[in-house]
Amino acid sequence: MALKVAIIGFGNVGKGVARVLSERKDGLFKVIAIADSKGAVIDEDGLDLAKVLELKNNGGLVRTSKSSMDVVRGYDYDILVEVTPTDAKTGEPGLSYIREALKRGKHVVTSNKGPVALKYKELKGLAKENNAHFLFEATVGGAMPVFNLMRAPLAGNRITGIMGIFNGTCNYILTRMANEGLPYDMVLSEAKELGIAEADPTYDVEGIDTALKLVILANAVFGMDVKLEDVDRVGISGVCLEALKLAGEAGMVIKLIGEVRPNGEEAVLKVSPRLVPKNHPLAVQGTLNAALIHTTLAGDIYVIGKGAGSIETASAILSDMLYIASSR
Amino acid sequence: MALKVAIIGFGNVGKGVARVLSERKDGLFKVIAIADSKGAVIDEDGLDLAKVLELKNNGGLVRTSKSSMDVVRGYDYDILVEVTPTDAKTGEPGLSYIREALKRGKHVVTSNKGPVALKYKELKGLAKENNAHFLFEATVGGAMPVFNLMRAPLAGNRITGIMGIFNGTCNYILTRMANEGLPYDMVLSEAKELGIAEADPTYDVEGIDTALKLVILANAVFGMDVKLEDVDRVGISGVCLEALKLAGEAGMVIKLIGEVRPNGEEAVLKVSPRLVPKNHPLAVQGTLNAALIHTTLAGDIYVIGKGAGSIETASAILSDMLYIASSR
Repeated sequence: MALKVAIIGFGNVGKGVARVLSERKDGLFKVIAIADSKGAVIDEDGLDLAKVLELKNNGGLVRTSKSSMDVVRGYDYDILVEVTPTDAKTGEPGLSYIREALKRGKHVVTSNKGPVALKYKELKGLAKENNAHFLFEATVGGAMPVFNLMRAPLAGNRITGIMGIFNGTCNYILTRMANEGLPYDMVLSEAKELGIAEADPTYDVEGIDTALKLVILANAVFGMDVKLEDVDRVGISGVCLEALKLAGEAGMVIKLIGEVRPNGEEAVLKVSPRLVPKNHPLAVQGTLNAALIHTTLAGDIYVIGKGAGSIETASAILSDMLYIASSR
Repeated sequence: MALKVAIIGFGNVGKGVARVLSERKDGLFKVIAIADSKGAVIDEDGLDLAKVLELKNNGGLVRTSKSSMDVVRGYDYDILVEVTPTDAKTGEPGLSYIREALKRGKHVVTSNKGPVALKYKELKGLAKENNAHFLFEATVGGAMPVFNLMRAPLAGNRITGIMGIFNGTCNYILTRMANEGLPYDMVLSEAKELGIAEADPTYDVEGIDTALKLVILANAVFGMDVKLEDVDRVGISGVCLEALKLAGEAGMVIKLIGEVRPNGEEAVLKVSPRLVPKNHPLAVQGTLNAALIHTTLAGDIYVIGKGAGSIETASAILSDMLYIASSR
């Protein structure tokens, strides 16, 4: 029988999920509701996703007055796909939706970093109590598998540390600066024009986004109990062209690296620009993300992929949904 | 209840598996037999692996006269860990052991490329008929997850092609030649001294090992039905220093790349030295392996890791064993 899905949030990620699910022919999932801040479309027999997407894209989507919370509380879905925007301070509105769904014993899959970074322990506890899955592959590294890579493919290993490039915007800026010899401000303007950086780029360039992801990794992988404020954080706005040139002459590049190693005397939880040899697997170009996972048996495993994108993020969400389906 | 394990083959990989299992404290697996060409040690209550390893290493291991086939046919194990050496022509002796175990409805985990490359279809069919798992993560890329990466983390994606560096010996030789400006023969001698290349290096440097791995990927991932002879294959013995220098001046390196794309007009199944930009994720150094997996949703995903090593290969075998355990 199809798993019933409610999607909360209908921006780029929500649309990507709807697109990807509309193209699946196996009938494994049936989307019964899609809600955003303007209301909800609901069909308990399953929405015609292609139609809904078409109407959404041409501005003709007529929603009922049901709110997202009405859907979360009142409908009979199996999986809540929570893809509202990240609020790093409060986690809202996603946090309330996730809490509510888990309390109802519904599985939750999210791409929303706020709730996972702020309330991992509480939400994981709620999931456990209510015999539900709480999965968030899409919160770190977009299409690049991290949590699902550590689960089965690296099963049997203890993970002793993770470092990597977890923000495509910063990596794009540093790559362009290094390759073209262009100053920070110029590349940042270009990135804004291309839609790679936000109008207010603070969240990315000051390393906040990377730090949120580190908090998620720290708490979820290593059982730490840390907050955004605990991350030792320096962004890329202070990286000057001269530093990149000197690095280049020494066969290095400068990358914004996030690193987490679990509690103990040599615990690390930091985001900062760091020198990386040009021929090192983490020295990836453009908007790519990369992670280095230190393991006890397999040694160092690297994974590299697209850190963002509507369909790419939907791929990560889908892998979580399929995990739930396979665990039935 | 513990899953009972029989290990066939007690060289580097077999010892690695025994070591890794001896250090697990969860009682999930119990090794009841280890056999090699000299006989077998058997204890249906579970071998003391630390003791067996110690005796094996100091030459004091006393085996019964039971043969590997006696163990495969006559004992009550749940998982056969088949780690005898690869024979690319016949697949033996591993092929017969795997066939026999699958016919008995036993799960098989192997690191042996011969049987998988030669008889994938038959063995997969036998496994299916007998409701057993037939898993071989360790055959491609050592510790680097490939099959297990494509299974759950990239679930929902269609894989449209795979290319990569699947032989650490060749990659070591090409890396040293490029970085140090040393000729092929000199680096090959060095690699032999370091134990990175075999006394007869043909199998690696002529691309046969890489081709075998491609055959496994072609048949197992893409449902093709190809043989070693179908691979368009060129090794690295013809790569001259001049070519590496010219490549270097153009910001490129030369790597032995295996590539498979499924049947159709643009089907590809080839091993050859190819130019790769220095800053490309596949341009990994030393003995590292790297794979680029083309997917329909997640885009291009790269994974990089150690392609060989006793414990690293054991890690891949263990991930397969844990998959079997979790599927019970």
